[in-house]
Amino acid sequence: MVEKISFASDYEEGAHPAIIKNLERTNFFKTAGYGTDEFSESARQKIRKACNAPNAEIFFLVGGTQTNAVVIGALLKSYEGVIAADSGHISIHEAGAIEFGGHKVLTLPHHAGKILAGDVKAFVENFFADGNREHMVFPGMVYISQPTEYGTLYTLNELKALNKICREKNLSLYVDGARLAYALASDKNDVSLENLAELCDAFYIGGTKCGAYFGEAVVLKKNLVPHFFTIIKQRGALLAKGRILGVQFDTLFNDDLYFKIGRRAIDAAEKIRNELKHLGCKLFLDAPTNQIFVVVSDAQLKILSERVEFSFWEKISVDKTVIRLATSWATREEDVNKLLEELRRLI
Amino acid sequence: MVEKISFASDYEEGAHPAIIKNLERTNFFKTAGYGTDEFSESARQKIRKACNAPNAEIFFLVGGTQTNAVVIGALLKSYEGVIAADSGHISIHEAGAIEFGGHKVLTLPHHAGKILAGDVKAFVENFFADGNREHMVFPGMVYISQPTEYGTLYTLNELKALNKICREKNLSLYVDGARLAYALASDKNDVSLENLAELCDAFYIGGTKCGAYFGEAVVLKKNLVPHFFTIIKQRGALLAKGRILGVQFDTLFNDDLYFKIGRRAIDAAEKIRNELKHLGCKLFLDAPTNQIFVVVSDAQLKILSERVEFSFWEKISVDKTVIRLATSWATREEDVNKLLEELRRLI
Amino acid sequence: MVEKISFASDYEEGAHPAIIKNLERTNFFKTAGYGTDEFSESARQKIRKACNAPNAEIFFLVGGTQTNAVVIGALLKSYEGVIAADSGHISIHEAGAIEFGGHKVLTLPHHAGKILAGDVKAFVENFFADGNREHMVFPGMVYISQPTEYGTLYTLNELKALNKICREKNLSLYVDGARLAYALASDKNDVSLENLAELCDAFYIGGTKCGAYFGEAVVLKKNLVPHFFTIIKQRGALLAKGRILGVQFDTLFNDDLYFKIGRRAIDAAEKIRNELKHLGCKLFLDAPTNQIFVVVSDAQLKILSERVEFSFWEKISVDKTVIRLATSWATREEDVNKLLEELRRLI
Amino acid sequence: MVEKISFASDYEEGAHPAIIKNLERTNFFKTAGYGTDEFSESARQKIRKACNAPNAEIFFLVGGTQTNAVVIGALLKSYEGVIAADSGHISIHEAGAIEFGGHKVLTLPHHAGKILAGDVKAFVENFFADGNREHMVFPGMVYISQPTEYGTLYTLNELKALNKICREKNLSLYVDGARLAYALASDKNDVSLENLAELCDAFYIGGTKCGAYFGEAVVLKKNLVPHFFTIIKQRGALLAKGRILGVQFDTLFNDDLYFKIGRRAIDAAEKIRNELKHLGCKLFLDAPTNQIFVVVSDAQLKILSERVEFSFWEKISVDKTVIRLATSWATREEDVNKLLEELRRLI
Repeated sequence: MVEKISFASDYEEGAHPAIIKNLERTNFFKTAGYGTDEFSESARQKIRKACNAPNAEIFFLVGGTQTNAVVIGALLKSYEGVIAADSGHISIHEAGAIEFGGHKVLTLPHHAGKILAGDVKAFVENFFADGNREHMVFPGMVYISQPTEYGTLYTLNELKALNKICREKNLSLYVDGARLAYALASDKNDVSLENLAELCDAFYIGGTKCGAYFGEAVVLKKNLVPHFFTIIKQRGALLAKGRILGVQFDTLFNDDLYFKIGRRAIDAAEKIRNELKHLGCKLFLDAPTNQIFVVVSDAQLKILSERVEFSFWEKISVDKTVIRLATSWATREEDVNKLLEELRRLI
Repeated sequence: MVEKISFASDYEEGAHPAIIKNLERTNFFKTAGYGTDEFSESARQKIRKACNAPNAEIFFLVGGTQTNAVVIGALLKSYEGVIAADSGHISIHEAGAIEFGGHKVLTLPHHAGKILAGDVKAFVENFFADGNREHMVFPGMVYISQPTEYGTLYTLNELKALNKICREKNLSLYVDGARLAYALASDKNDVSLENLAELCDAFYIGGTKCGAYFGEAVVLKKNLVPHFFTIIKQRGALLAKGRILGVQFDTLFNDDLYFKIGRRAIDAAEKIRNELKHLGCKLFLDAPTNQIFVVVSDAQLKILSERVEFSFWEKISVDKTVIRLATSWATREEDVNKLLEELRRLI
Repeated sequence: MVEKISFASDYEEGAHPAIIKNLERTNFFKTAGYGTDEFSESARQKIRKACNAPNAEIFFLVGGTQTNAVVIGALLKSYEGVIAADSGHISIHEAGAIEFGGHKVLTLPHHAGKILAGDVKAFVENFFADGNREHMVFPGMVYISQPTEYGTLYTLNELKALNKICREKNLSLYVDGARLAYALASDKNDVSLENLAELCDAFYIGGTKCGAYFGEAVVLKKNLVPHFFTIIKQRGALLAKGRILGVQFDTLFNDDLYFKIGRRAIDAAEKIRNELKHLGCKLFLDAPTNQIFVVVSDAQLKILSERVEFSFWEKISVDKTVIRLATSWATREEDVNKLLEELRRLI
Repeated sequence: MVEKISFASDYEEGAHPAIIKNLERTNFFKTAGYGTDEFSESARQKIRKACNAPNAEIFFLVGGTQTNAVVIGALLKSYEGVIAADSGHISIHEAGAIEFGGHKVLTLPHHAGKILAGDVKAFVENFFADGNREHMVFPGMVYISQPTEYGTLYTLNELKALNKICREKNLSLYVDGARLAYALASDKNDVSLENLAELCDAFYIGGTKCGAYFGEAVVLKKNLVPHFFTIIKQRGALLAKGRILGVQFDTLFNDDLYFKIGRRAIDAAEKIRNELKHLGCKLFLDAPTNQIFVVVSDAQLKILSERVEFSFWEKISVDKTVIRLATSWATREEDVNKLLEELRRLI
């Protein structure tokens, strides 16, 4: 197996070495199961501290789709649906996991991956003005991703505006942070963990794409969901050896590792974006996180795909395609340099 | 954190060192996600070989309840339920995961954890003789555990009898192998992986309790479930970094590790059982795998619980309690010896 | 089509003539849909009055299984199940409708169709004493039928005892009144509509088996279920022309018709039961409502089935069978007399 | 209660007098339940004949949302969704009934209420070209309404084109015929019952809005859904006194009553539409069935709403609103004349 120059996704490697080390170190400690162990408890305390939210409830789940399905299912009433961007992960790429749990995804058109507080307001007010609303799915929560599926970021003001409309209309606000490390590390970001913990009813801190083998840390406002443990179990999302999640997040939130991990990916992405701009190459959108969306011609696409792995994103005209390059906590400087070389040769 | 003399469960440690080593070795290899990587493919090939089932379809899931919910949900038609022992894991200890997926668990009384082919036959025949059957839940599959929740084993003849009645009545047969390593290694066992692959529509090879950090390998008859991948995704059970499961099972099925792991637990359990018998102590049932069910008096219970961790199982009379001691792949000889000492002192 | 001497069930005819007359009289009145019409409102007022429950919320649904599924689904939290007799309608004869909605039916052994407050108490206390309870389905409500599927009646004291344990353990109490008219009219009954409205969180007054074409009136404690209307719609249980239900219940609760309907069935059943006793025939159980359970020999079974329609209930020994005869609001005196004649000839 | 000049909907009255008469005539015939009676069987035969589909399976359900939820749930596999117009009844006005059953509604933009075969083709081909499709909801069926929610009609060619694409792409084709009588009676219609039975996997013939108290007749291709009876029961959609549905459809399909009922509504609607055109009034769309969509000014809206009941449809500009007038089987000539008078006065 050859290690390739690949920018295809941010989950191509295993885990950050510090995680591996801690898992190995603690391997033969005997602990109770299901997240009741001391490593999980330590991780919860560190996350509460990082969020400045001493009363937050923290649960560790395994993956993103699972986390979205469990949290959204737990927060919605049976007759409610979840408002999301039409580009949102739950809208398209979760194989109907939200609907499997009985709920409709109520989509709004996205703006570079984001939904606007004004659009939410209009949607909800139209709903309540509709004489047939009792025959319709009630809007019960707002789902957003930070960063979005397009790598863009909600500003603090945008998040506050969403929080305000959610409070006014009695909706929950939930943030999917699958790539949260790459938001937190971006120079353009002004939304902290503390802001998220204050402004959202629930959000999750992504591990899978941010240095862990797997795992997502759900942060819930206190007493929001009674018996969330059993809900997790009922949905097959409870890890027997919860310590494996505990040790991973305990490591990620030790000595700012989660933030450093993000920084490395952002630095690499910035370097690539700068070179692309310098080369006069067109970015599809100027996302400030670890995903780079580039417009390439068919000829460029052909050549590049022989040398670099990336994601096909979208065909936008007869001879133009958008591709995605993703950096991560594991991106090596030498691979970035090789990529830049390829790009210079190409363009 | 002190390492304690604990026989409380078989998932108190992390993973077998060989797994850790392989995860570390492969950590920076870049792979595609969702089980399409080479480690997963290698693991699948090894499992097919161990099962002598070259056409079997293998999927790696994360945990037992999840696996049961996904497989049972995928195999049953909407109007069908699953027949299980009233002591079965899906009947009691999965927080209603099967019902969450829309299906009833049709319970039969257990016999030392097992259900009998004759009872299944009678149940199904009564169903089809009932004039109201179209208003009832149709029996669609049989769920058993090997070993059972009581540590007992189905014999090959019993499994064949269940297979026969399932074929006759058009039911699927599914085996929960959460602790399968401890069945396979038992001297009393005569059911091989090959038998399981031949006689069952689906079964899973447990990793979580048998040496892995986590993970269960589902073995399906070819073409049994179209689009099982998407069903897994829809239920939030698809691991992004599928390689983590792949490497683990690739290690477990390398050089018979899975069988060796089981053997170690069985040897330890046998040693304990023999000593108990020698001491004249009453076993609740003579299960030949890694779980030991002992009847103790209240006085014994009190003393033992100060020195050893175990599971409370059931109070069976005013002053008698059944406790469970579990060995595992990680059980150390020194701990066994300390336990024997405690037992000798106690009885 | 010949009208036969049939005691096969209590829903073999259409509707009480007074209902037909009122449906015809109001046929061309134009009304709004979905139960917002004046007939439905009038029916709600009459039912509130009959229950002495001026604040009760009343909803009209179409059938019994539907009503059980909607009410139970609306009252339970996702991680809760419903406690019921193993002979209960939801346990056996609703094709898994409760499980389709995601909930487990937690069965208790029945006593002549009833569950005992003591058994509920023991079950719930065992649950809360179980160290694994967070991995189990939480008991969330108690479901009983009045009369039961065996035609027996809960006494007021039994109902109060169930209410008490439900209050103590924070369970909802729900009564399936599919045949409620036949309970209310029984001489042995001491549970009034007012008692039900006071002691239950929810119950329904059966129309389908008690004189209506179809329809069940759900009586809910005020504010118990927000947006119950939309929950009904979401489950496909909302009748567009709600007036059809409204007119029927408005008629049934006019001038005590619902009670008179019940009386007629009870009188007929009593007459049959008395003759059976007089003939020395064995009743399977001495249910005081409109269902008569008789033990017959194979020879008797053969002869009787040539002349009378009834329900096969259960084979209880090699040569003894329990059959069920049901009277209803529509039972004619001449048919009762013919039946008595047949019985005299038979025994 | 005053009978008002109302064109608010097509389900404001009870049932056609012929239905009432037959229900009354058969009221005391004793029949078996759940649609096994002779009236239901007779109705099934008549519908098969009207559809020229001797092998079709016919089931009678209670209402439209229920029918859509049951049929769609029965036809889709768990990982599939249903393609529908974004204006479709299942997309908006069924309170999430399809999602409650676990399935996503995949919406396409409507064209005067219709979806185009070309759009379906493009959608499905994009899906199968998408590298992430295994992480997405599979398109499993196409849902259309005839007439649509806008009163428009699919032509036979359009239906054939949809059938063709469904066959090619292995999708089911299902037609919601809530107002089918008004399609069949329209001069512009060229799609017969026979065409529907041939070209669709399933469709339903609406009773609730077409002369019945309630009821929809589902027509399924033979052997399409095993145990559909139990599926109906499981979803709480099985009527105990199935005869009530049987008698209604037996009457509607006797002596072409269903077609005559439609004709009356169409004649009335045409008369109104012609007068509106003659008065120079703008129709929102020229739907050829029983619904009339008119654009009115705010001043006109105010005056009209004092004298006539109608449905608010949509505000289309600062001072223009679309209203809907609906005729039905029960529309009286005198009411039409009064409406025309009001319209003449108004415009």
